[in-house]
Amino acid sequence: MWQLFQFPLCPFSRKVRLVLGEKGVAHELVRENPWERRDEFIDLNPAGETPVLVDSTAGIALIGSQPIVEFFDETVDKMPMIHGNGAARAEIRRLTEWFDEKLFREVVEPLMHERMRKRLVSRESPDTRVLREAMRIANGHLDYMDYLLDHRRWIAGAGLSLADFTAAAHLSVVDYLGALDWRGHKQTKDWYAVMKSRPAFRPLLGERMEVIVPPAHYDKVDF
Amino acid sequence: MWQLFQFPLCPFSRKVRLVLGEKGVAHELVRENPWERRDEFIDLNPAGETPVLVDSTAGIALIGSQPIVEFFDETVDKMPMIHGNGAARAEIRRLTEWFDEKLFREVVEPLMHERMRKRLVSRESPDTRVLREAMRIANGHLDYMDYLLDHRRWIAGAGLSLADFTAAAHLSVVDYLGALDWRGHKQTKDWYAVMKSRPAFRPLLGERMEVIVPPAHYDKVDF
Repeated sequence: MWQLFQFPLCPFSRKVRLVLGEKGVAHELVRENPWERRDEFIDLNPAGETPVLVDSTAGIALIGSQPIVEFFDETVDKMPMIHGNGAARAEIRRLTEWFDEKLFREVVEPLMHERMRKRLVSRESPDTRVLREAMRIANGHLDYMDYLLDHRRWIAGAGLSLADFTAAAHLSVVDYLGALDWRGHKQTKDWYAVMKSRPAFRPLLGERMEVIVPPAHYDKVDF
Repeated sequence: MWQLFQFPLCPFSRKVRLVLGEKGVAHELVRENPWERRDEFIDLNPAGETPVLVDSTAGIALIGSQPIVEFFDETVDKMPMIHGNGAARAEIRRLTEWFDEKLFREVVEPLMHERMRKRLVSRESPDTRVLREAMRIANGHLDYMDYLLDHRRWIAGAGLSLADFTAAAHLSVVDYLGALDWRGHKQTKDWYAVMKSRPAFRPLLGERMEVIVPPAHYDKVDF
């Protein structure tokens, strides 16, 4: 049985959980707070980051969301994540990187720092200037997604793909932390309602991170 | 004919150039300074980052180093970059991400900002505190590479892979900017001498970024 080392608000763990759920890969969750830098976890992943997926019977540790997803997309046919011809696959990977790197660096990481780690770890108040800037940039990302969804059925093209699950994983963390204003983003809101209603997403939306309470609309498909 | 939009000190462009060279994919270089945010380039890649690889006859634009590399690894058999069984492929992708994300964020990006963009764009002096910290962390990365190369023939395992070319691409930028101290890192130094001597690496090492002069050892295989 696979064990996934993760914590509830880790966007990369959420991405992996959505993909494992869609592909029907059985796994159990192991709670890991990377900021505690537990020795056994650093031995497993020297970068000290979640997610890590371990099969201790087979002696395999898969580290990082993209290596994990590529592993299962190569070995489990159900619900292909990176599909189509070469150009289509490159577009799926481009947009997956867009959310994993650009949205994460500009929006998700600053929000997690201000609203989660400062609260749980250093017990400081959030910097409202940083929060406002992250929310402003988040709005620009929603504009870009609206534009994409005006031109195609799903984020990276005609088919549901890894780009959709990656976007939904990161946005769900931003939404949990109360930093998304959905007004004026009908295309992306409609798309996100569809994503939220998928069975693989439901257990994720039901979980709570200790102390931090999401807004009332967070887990509602109709929001 | 493919056209690669890039600039000489972009580590991600270097990674793509090494892979295209190893695989024998003909391409021409187009100089692009992403900090100028040229309209036509932003139209091509809304993230505004190099590398972008365009085949205008076929109407294809591949964006970002990893999507480009995966595209050619799927379509060109020569010199496989991500190879072996599932666990081996995950290890190659883990270490590729290590250099593309962790080494880049902690070392390459701060150095490029202090020693390249400040010089070429904003004409400020570099912040010596930031430079010292980046060099200290670079030394830690060399320690980790020494450790890996103590246990395996190449960075990610028994075979030469994308992890080696990615590491070499990033390290070559750090070395150009004079921030690597090779003393005490015999394993990584020997590995890097082998990488430098590959025909795909030679043209790269012969190029210069305007105004910025690399140290004398930079392009020497025996250094």
